[in-house]
Amino acid sequence: MQQKPQRTVTPLPTVRRFPVYLRLLLQLKSQGREDVSATTIAQKLNLEAILVRKDLSLAGVVGRPRIGFEIAPLIEKLESFLGWSDPAKAFLIGAGHLGSALLQYEPLRQQGLDIIAAFDRDPNLIGETIANKPVLAIEKLPSLARRMHVHTAVLTVPASVAQEVADLAIDGGICGIWNFAPTQLDIREGVFVHHEDLSASSAILTVQVSKLLHARNSSAADSNETTEEP
Amino acid sequence: MQQKPQRTVTPLPTVRRFPVYLRLLLQLKSQGREDVSATTIAQKLNLEAILVRKDLSLAGVVGRPRIGFEIAPLIEKLESFLGWSDPAKAFLIGAGHLGSALLQYEPLRQQGLDIIAAFDRDPNLIGETIANKPVLAIEKLPSLARRMHVHTAVLTVPASVAQEVADLAIDGGICGIWNFAPTQLDIREGVFVHHEDLSASSAILTVQVSKLLHARNSSAADSNETTEEP
Repeated sequence: MQQKPQRTVTPLPTVRRFPVYLRLLLQLKSQGREDVSATTIAQKLNLEAILVRKDLSLAGVVGRPRIGFEIAPLIEKLESFLGWSDPAKAFLIGAGHLGSALLQYEPLRQQGLDIIAAFDRDPNLIGETIANKPVLAIEKLPSLARRMHVHTAVLTVPASVAQEVADLAIDGGICGIWNFAPTQLDIREGVFVHHEDLSASSAILTVQVSKLLHARNSSAADSNETTEEP
Repeated sequence: MQQKPQRTVTPLPTVRRFPVYLRLLLQLKSQGREDVSATTIAQKLNLEAILVRKDLSLAGVVGRPRIGFEIAPLIEKLESFLGWSDPAKAFLIGAGHLGSALLQYEPLRQQGLDIIAAFDRDPNLIGETIANKPVLAIEKLPSLARRMHVHTAVLTVPASVAQEVADLAIDGGICGIWNFAPTQLDIREGVFVHHEDLSASSAILTVQVSKLLHARNSSAADSNETTEEP
């Protein structure tokens, strides 16, 4: 049996960059390229070449001098490391607008997460299917999670019920929660929460845009001055 | 006129934490609390107290010895800094599943981003409204962005057309792009892109879950050993 690369030693920032490398490699492959240097990868992604080499060595791949990396085997290694070749089963909790969108969002499955069912409290939703996935009553989650060996949950419920629903999921053996609810969760040991913080993203965007507009306006004022006072 | 805190000097990691502070402060306020110490904030958010004090001082707020921060004025400062009291107008491009979900996602507006219209290429969508926002033909974007002084765009299109659509938006004066398309964008100077990388999130989740399950199984094996060999 082939040895898998050690998952436990890979730092999270590296894990976070793996999908970015993969996207670029798939793009280069579709353009007919067969190999690529760490320097080229670094340039295209705005990273340092030394970081790229280190990251890829953690996936168990070492480039060859002058040639760099063969693209096809590198793609295979990264996909296997990330589990994209064998997606993890997940439950989604909260089949509202955001939840339905994620159920219908094809790239997730290709990228390692296979949402197989949704759970909700709304009697109008229970019994429906969204993107071929059943919407079930939330009470059924713990027993189904145990029976189907599902350990990952995507949380797309309002902030007010997020904690209660997370506790229920954890009771069913869920140990990884992707939390889209705009709230902090109190979580016991042995459970990992990744908070998808859309408000943090929107904060960064707003602040950066106002900085750029400020710079734009100042330079426009400068050039007005020049033209008006020749 | 009241002086706004300097936006240009605030580091992005601090900006990213501001909404997290705000959520906690609003929660404490709703529980009837009037003040809170940096130490309490730090404990609840799993941060260092010294970092919390530094962050909040960048928003122009300094705590008082023993008492800490008064909650109501701190909320006001942070909301004004982030522009939550006066949301930035934005266009959404790509009114598919994810796009529609964001159009209907109430918290965004409360959190500083007011999506006022959507754009698409699909004749079946053009002319419709989603959550009271019109879906317009993509060709109209540049002129409307200029006329309405919209500088921010949310990109929820497939990866294959993301670059083309981003270029069109930038032609219309858009300088901030929130990119949900799973692809790297080539962007000219003076434009900021925040990549919402759902695949990076799903990668982290998958890797952490498999680490936790591994730990769970080993400790289960340990306790089995103990019970079976008394």
